[in-house]
Amino acid sequence: MAIRLEPSGGAISSHDVQRILGIDPGTVRTGWGVVEMAGGSLCHVAHGTVNAAQGPGQGNRLSRIYRSLQEIVRSYEPHGVSLEKVFFARNAQSALKLGQARGVALLAAAENGLAIHEYTSAEIKLAVVGYGGAAKEQVQKMVASLLRLSGRIPADAADALAAAICYLHQRPFHDRVVGALPSLRTEGKPGRAP
Amino acid sequence: MAIRLEPSGGAISSHDVQRILGIDPGTVRTGWGVVEMAGGSLCHVAHGTVNAAQGPGQGNRLSRIYRSLQEIVRSYEPHGVSLEKVFFARNAQSALKLGQARGVALLAAAENGLAIHEYTSAEIKLAVVGYGGAAKEQVQKMVASLLRLSGRIPADAADALAAAICYLHQRPFHDRVVGALPSLRTEGKPGRAP
Repeated sequence: MAIRLEPSGGAISSHDVQRILGIDPGTVRTGWGVVEMAGGSLCHVAHGTVNAAQGPGQGNRLSRIYRSLQEIVRSYEPHGVSLEKVFFARNAQSALKLGQARGVALLAAAENGLAIHEYTSAEIKLAVVGYGGAAKEQVQKMVASLLRLSGRIPADAADALAAAICYLHQRPFHDRVVGALPSLRTEGKPGRAP
Repeated sequence: MAIRLEPSGGAISSHDVQRILGIDPGTVRTGWGVVEMAGGSLCHVAHGTVNAAQGPGQGNRLSRIYRSLQEIVRSYEPHGVSLEKVFFARNAQSALKLGQARGVALLAAAENGLAIHEYTSAEIKLAVVGYGGAAKEQVQKMVASLLRLSGRIPADAADALAAAICYLHQRPFHDRVVGALPSLRTEGKPGRAP
């Protein structure tokens, strides 16, 4: 059975529209970006950066990130959240602080019943640039090009948009594979020859 | 000016009662404990463990920790939150995961307007056992003894209670020092001889 990756090209139903919130959490700046896939085309919805540097105390800074993300989810009503998996950090302290920001981002998604999708940095670069070892600037340029945005996108927001694009690029493939599995299983089942 | 560390021993006003929620955040188990200091005496209020191991997906596990802590704050109405500072971790992954659990604990405190107090492991051991290099079992035993609890306290809850006790032990000293500062400054000001 052939797995079709491209959309059928027919009329777009609301079921075909997928809106994803990409998040790039950080203790100081948290980038976010909302991207839609409709009828096989990527469409930019919004992007921005939550600046939590000015808040007094880490509790209030986390609160600022959480409330901003809650507001973004309420405003743009995404179907899911996509963010980068993290494996490395300069040291335990920076991993811990990044984890704190990441924790409230994941919480904002879970509290709104949104599915969380995570991808490695290489997976995101591969989906956006076509090369898993691409430089940060290449990702920024390709994000702008894919979403037909002019002007420079802030680095954190570009990373968030890239995570959203990664999910939207991988989803059709994932859906077709999952859709094909039951028939593949039936076809391959022993003693079930036609 | 002498700095008095002991309470005056007079009638206890509601202002003298300090109720602190200690938290020991973890990705699987989050210990918590509420301790009160009234008229110079420590008093156990409640303790427990939030088990987030069974939740499907890290977002839902963080949501479970957050909601449980929100419920604990609503039930016991503490004046502040105390937890251990973390400096070391096995690796970036464990620091990141611990950070995520810590992030939602700090968020629960901030969203309820509670002040966050943090102490190093050595400060907590010193306040509870009298020795900064004390073993975990010694801390558990001393927590039970100080709070007049019989039976074994789960390790995570004991750590949370120890963090709360640390704040309550240090607070009178801190308050007296802060209270003494303006007069000390006036006394020491040049050209202000009596």
